[in-house]
Amino acid sequence: MKIVIRLVFILSFIMILSCSQKSDFSNGTWVDLSYDFSPETIYWPTADSFTHDSVFVGITEGGFYYTAYNFKAAEHGGTHIDAPIHFAEGRKSVDQLPLSQLIGEAIVIDVSEQALQNPDYLVVKGDFEKWENKNGKMPDNCIIFLKTGYGKFWPDRKTYMGTDKLGPEGVAELHFPGLHPDAANWLVDNRKIKAIGLDTPSIDYGQSKLFESHQNLFKNNIPAFENVANLDKLPEKDFIVFAFPMKIKDGSGGPLRIAAFIPKI
Amino acid sequence: MKIVIRLVFILSFIMILSCSQKSDFSNGTWVDLSYDFSPETIYWPTADSFTHDSVFVGITEGGFYYTAYNFKAAEHGGTHIDAPIHFAEGRKSVDQLPLSQLIGEAIVIDVSEQALQNPDYLVVKGDFEKWENKNGKMPDNCIIFLKTGYGKFWPDRKTYMGTDKLGPEGVAELHFPGLHPDAANWLVDNRKIKAIGLDTPSIDYGQSKLFESHQNLFKNNIPAFENVANLDKLPEKDFIVFAFPMKIKDGSGGPLRIAAFIPKI
Repeated sequence: MKIVIRLVFILSFIMILSCSQKSDFSNGTWVDLSYDFSPETIYWPTADSFTHDSVFVGITEGGFYYTAYNFKAAEHGGTHIDAPIHFAEGRKSVDQLPLSQLIGEAIVIDVSEQALQNPDYLVVKGDFEKWENKNGKMPDNCIIFLKTGYGKFWPDRKTYMGTDKLGPEGVAELHFPGLHPDAANWLVDNRKIKAIGLDTPSIDYGQSKLFESHQNLFKNNIPAFENVANLDKLPEKDFIVFAFPMKIKDGSGGPLRIAAFIPKI
Repeated sequence: MKIVIRLVFILSFIMILSCSQKSDFSNGTWVDLSYDFSPETIYWPTADSFTHDSVFVGITEGGFYYTAYNFKAAEHGGTHIDAPIHFAEGRKSVDQLPLSQLIGEAIVIDVSEQALQNPDYLVVKGDFEKWENKNGKMPDNCIIFLKTGYGKFWPDRKTYMGTDKLGPEGVAELHFPGLHPDAANWLVDNRKIKAIGLDTPSIDYGQSKLFESHQNLFKNNIPAFENVANLDKLPEKDFIVFAFPMKIKDGSGGPLRIAAFIPKI
């Protein structure tokens, strides 16, 4: 039965392409999984926020309209990628991640029921098994999203991450769900994944002190997508993700434009 | 005959998807069309360059490795997008451009023979007609790349843009090819395009004072991709482009991660 469902997915994809006659993804839905960057964008309590400074706005001496800005920020804020080197010495920086690792079939693990009741919730192996019991083994080389439901609180720091305090005082009060380090290890050892993302500020939960899920994933060169938007608009499987980070040389991460294409079946 | 070729393209795409069984674009080639951002990245002579400042690199008090950076830059430098509002009041900012306009079938207009002999070369209507005489009318809703050949000079400012001087003195000495304003108008009036990109710093040529190609395209909400890398690695048609800009709220443009997928036929 699962093979039949997969075949239907593949066949529908073929039909889309043959019908559109352009391979331009016109028959299906694009979901933008990125928040915009603005002074409201959420950063770690100790990190520099996003600033956008006008260089010029208006009519130039030449008589035409012109506008441009400068911007600056920490690498890790808003919808962004953590490259493996962020927590694993000698592993890949953001510019070294091949696009083929950042594009692929994706699935959504929905833990929002538990996580919305407990801001310290940790996603465990059992959450993946629950998905697999329903859908079959997750596809090789997939991208996994953890849907905690916290996206609905964005951009309110207090509800999204437990505090609106800045500095070390804010870090101490962070509460939001994340991935259990043992579950990270289970994924690395037992499944073949390209990347993992979620709708909180960090793949480790707010109260983490050692960031062991980061460490366990990153030493295996598996990057994480954080503050991913609109996970509630995705099905639990059968869609494709395109995660395109700003290509910062030697970057430990950076702004990520990420989107999903859901074929119309 | 052209219909037959198009059918072969479509059928090959279908075959790829049915063979890969995963719709993950594993049967074909991804070409990264983005330069990385580093202190070497080329910006306009009057613009702020990219800076990447280390916040921490090394072993933390917690005993684990950690590294992170801050970065800043002008919106318009390196591989980037010009949003329509950059030169057209009231038109779309970068966050307002729908992804569906930034993804699609693409073609390459090769003007490198003329442009490498004349750094002030302007792409004219005849260059598009030459492509169409060979390949048929360009597809509706396509993305056009102008290949001037100047990508091979990156990141040497002197050969790439005519000068390594900074400030207004540098602007006066800019020499690199671009799109003729009349050809921009011809495209807008006679063809249906999503976006246009090229392998120089600006869609208007280096000696432009009024930036009329920018104006003509942008008032019609057609964005431009500039400093696009690796155009020499693309065929002249039958590939798909994904142009994912950093989503800066109200941005006049910004860093662009852009890639092409060339299906294996």
